[in-house]
Amino acid sequence: MSLPRQPIPLETRSARKRRSIVDAAREVFMERGYAGATMDAIAAAAGVSKPTVYNHFADKQQLFAQMLSDTIDELTLPFYEQVVDQPENVDVRDYLRDLARLLLNAVMQPQNLRLRRLVIAEASRFPELGRMYEEKAPDRAIAAVTEALKRLAKSGALQIEDPALAATHFAWLVVSVPLNHAMFSGDDRGLRRNQAEQHADNAVRMFLAAYSAR
Amino acid sequence: MSLPRQPIPLETRSARKRRSIVDAAREVFMERGYAGATMDAIAAAAGVSKPTVYNHFADKQQLFAQMLSDTIDELTLPFYEQVVDQPENVDVRDYLRDLARLLLNAVMQPQNLRLRRLVIAEASRFPELGRMYEEKAPDRAIAAVTEALKRLAKSGALQIEDPALAATHFAWLVVSVPLNHAMFSGDDRGLRRNQAEQHADNAVRMFLAAYSAR
Repeated sequence: MSLPRQPIPLETRSARKRRSIVDAAREVFMERGYAGATMDAIAAAAGVSKPTVYNHFADKQQLFAQMLSDTIDELTLPFYEQVVDQPENVDVRDYLRDLARLLLNAVMQPQNLRLRRLVIAEASRFPELGRMYEEKAPDRAIAAVTEALKRLAKSGALQIEDPALAATHFAWLVVSVPLNHAMFSGDDRGLRRNQAEQHADNAVRMFLAAYSAR
Repeated sequence: MSLPRQPIPLETRSARKRRSIVDAAREVFMERGYAGATMDAIAAAAGVSKPTVYNHFADKQQLFAQMLSDTIDELTLPFYEQVVDQPENVDVRDYLRDLARLLLNAVMQPQNLRLRRLVIAEASRFPELGRMYEEKAPDRAIAAVTEALKRLAKSGALQIEDPALAATHFAWLVVSVPLNHAMFSGDDRGLRRNQAEQHADNAVRMFLAAYSAR
């Protein structure tokens, strides 16, 4: 079968270039912070000219927004898919333990930890970056947990009046200790995996004590 | 009664100078970050010579440590005293609501929020600053909550196997949402007070559902 030739190679090349700029931007922003990163440095890291960077992105803020959006999507979309795919006809404790591990795994990705530090560092000067991060990362993760808890409440396994509130409790019970420790230790590996999972299991036990259907 | 003259004025003057250096350091560190703050800028802000700064502090790291320690003590010691002074013969829900408000109040001080952002920003390069903050701020606050919960468990009002774990749950349930929102919004006022308190009350309700003696 012979298809008419589409200008795919050209488009792909442009998309590839755009992607390499975003990847370079991620490295430069994380290395130098938002204020310290320049379009010159990003162009050099991407191996393109500065006008090429400006062909794709109007300014540094737009490029940062794209980098943030792409990075968070890469980190969190697998989490949402896994939450949606979690089998329902299992023991509620097993279900929540798995959910906690998925959440922990998404949040504790080294790229997320580095991005989170960067955004917090710049939040006073650039609050719009913080707002963007908050909407894309914690808010969306908690929305996914909310949907999971709604299903568990509907099935009668949990007794939950306010699923969004319960999801907020669940998420912070699971991630606060390892996440904050990672923020302060500067160690992108965070707590050792078994410590983090033990903490997650304790959080699930506490959550079930509060929200189990009686 | 005539006491022999002590060299108190001189000592006081030195202590006052030391304190003015620490106060200036706080401003300069928060304005410029750890790496950007210079001993020159701190001396200028304190209105003293650079050798005077070095008479009191061996290097920038020691000065930062002193500033951190002083600031955290100022912010958290009232919290510990209030926790110790909380009357015990009150309703456990009222007690925990008050405890949550005290904790929230200590954590959400603008100075703490600024210091927390600064330490997180520098944690990769200067992990010892993060360790210091973690020990002095969250760890000590959770230790104070642990003592309070031990007393409640002893009185039979709560059923707690592991008070330190329960205190960790309590503290993060109370502060996570307003604290993280403040980190990302860059707004040192954080959530509006009534929102933060409503969040704290929800946390107490959830905590009691899990840990009430039955």
